[in-house]
Amino acid sequence: MTHSTADSQPLLPSADACPLPDTASLLADRYGAGQEQEVPDHPFIRQILQHRSVRAFQPRALPEHTLETLVAAAQSGSSSSNLQVWSVLAVQDEAHKNQLAVWANNQDFVRQAPLFLVWLADLSRVRLLAAAQGVELDGTDYLESLVLASVDTAIAAQNAVLAAESLGLGAVYVGAIRSHIRPIAESLQLPPYVFPVFGTAIGYPSDSVTTHIRPRLPQAAVLHRETYDAQAQPEAAASYNQALDAFWKKQGIDHPLWTQHLLTRLGNVASRGDARYELREILTELSFPLR
Amino acid sequence: MTHSTADSQPLLPSADACPLPDTASLLADRYGAGQEQEVPDHPFIRQILQHRSVRAFQPRALPEHTLETLVAAAQSGSSSSNLQVWSVLAVQDEAHKNQLAVWANNQDFVRQAPLFLVWLADLSRVRLLAAAQGVELDGTDYLESLVLASVDTAIAAQNAVLAAESLGLGAVYVGAIRSHIRPIAESLQLPPYVFPVFGTAIGYPSDSVTTHIRPRLPQAAVLHRETYDAQAQPEAAASYNQALDAFWKKQGIDHPLWTQHLLTRLGNVASRGDARYELREILTELSFPLR
Repeated sequence: MTHSTADSQPLLPSADACPLPDTASLLADRYGAGQEQEVPDHPFIRQILQHRSVRAFQPRALPEHTLETLVAAAQSGSSSSNLQVWSVLAVQDEAHKNQLAVWANNQDFVRQAPLFLVWLADLSRVRLLAAAQGVELDGTDYLESLVLASVDTAIAAQNAVLAAESLGLGAVYVGAIRSHIRPIAESLQLPPYVFPVFGTAIGYPSDSVTTHIRPRLPQAAVLHRETYDAQAQPEAAASYNQALDAFWKKQGIDHPLWTQHLLTRLGNVASRGDARYELREILTELSFPLR
Repeated sequence: MTHSTADSQPLLPSADACPLPDTASLLADRYGAGQEQEVPDHPFIRQILQHRSVRAFQPRALPEHTLETLVAAAQSGSSSSNLQVWSVLAVQDEAHKNQLAVWANNQDFVRQAPLFLVWLADLSRVRLLAAAQGVELDGTDYLESLVLASVDTAIAAQNAVLAAESLGLGAVYVGAIRSHIRPIAESLQLPPYVFPVFGTAIGYPSDSVTTHIRPRLPQAAVLHRETYDAQAQPEAAASYNQALDAFWKKQGIDHPLWTQHLLTRLGNVASRGDARYELREILTELSFPLR
């Protein structure tokens, strides 16, 4: 297998070289003009607010130590009871990345990106270490532990994504790998009790594709106080349909309304033959009893 | 209900007022001396690496707009297919927080913190909006969607936690709420298809309790290249047992070895009567068919 090699580019663009817009501007993009929230103008907050998924990458190799930096960031995230029940698998080999791109719904950016990370909810390690002490853990066999491990995996991955973005790299989550868990688990030689939750493609953003901050629902839709309140949803969704429609139109992209998109994405899935809706059976095959 | 009111403290400590240690020092704390990785010294990376959970808070109220800032950060995280299937519920009422503290294994910091956030995997909103169009979604009924929503909830929460930390606040994840989902779902008036995944307590860290960066497993344990390789685990765990033991001893805390802790936490759970191991039944009660 061949690996990408580091080039001699400096790792860190200086803060002045690529300043981030102020939070007012970032929030106007995030919520639509007139919907902005009062948010302090702090460099770290700007960095978080400026996120946009990057789906086109330069062929350029990553600087030395990028992978170790992303893993250190990931491991610095919270871990439930310090169990550390996740792993990350780095795919850099070209042929291997090509194969994974096919399994990630044939998305070209998985091929382009110099680094594809597969994030694993990993209950195998703790079982292995317990077995060495003569104990078979039963805690790993419950849906609870799958949720716990998936959450901790996501916390770790988000730290890595933010670290990558702060270094001038782009990233995108790839949930589509859940449509092909069976061949992926085999190809990555995953042991029992390891669940590939999602991937992240990481690299330098392409110069020829402009990325934009995508609007999100108004805060009234996602923020509840003291008790859950669904009353705001219809109005928030109507307002969001408009904001997102304006976002697509501005780019000349023809896109259904968001509330219509929900039906396309989550309606009538049973007939689709998408293996992500066989996750329960697949996890059983990967040895998770899911009690 | 009474809410904490904002005080007149400035929101942003200046960067110079509380400088973060350099990455070399942070990594020595994270991996143990001699185990450090090569990581660039970038302010945002420092901010991520310096994470430690805060479990003791000042009674001090949060500055104005803190909640909106955390929600804006949360919403800026990636969302699978832009479905936005999460919500966050802010608990600031004292009596309500006291009640939740009891359900979070009676942990005092939930009472102390001016803000307790309950993070919700929320498949209710999309169902509601589809129902308004006369469509009953079936995609929400699969384990796949529970995993997708839990992952997106965690990505959002981690953005909020990092935003809080960058503003000089402290935070801790509270998975213990999963031991009391039934009363919590009732108390928060959660509709069907809403799963309270975890909480986060947020506030100014207590001056009288020093927090430390907790060591993590060596990177060799969690990072795999091209294929999964378990060979490094025994040695990595042995080395980690030592590093973590030194960490606890330095603080004068008597703590079992990490590999022993795994058995305590994940062994013999069936006999424990902890409702988190009834998650599958509870989610069925919350209407998730988990197909």
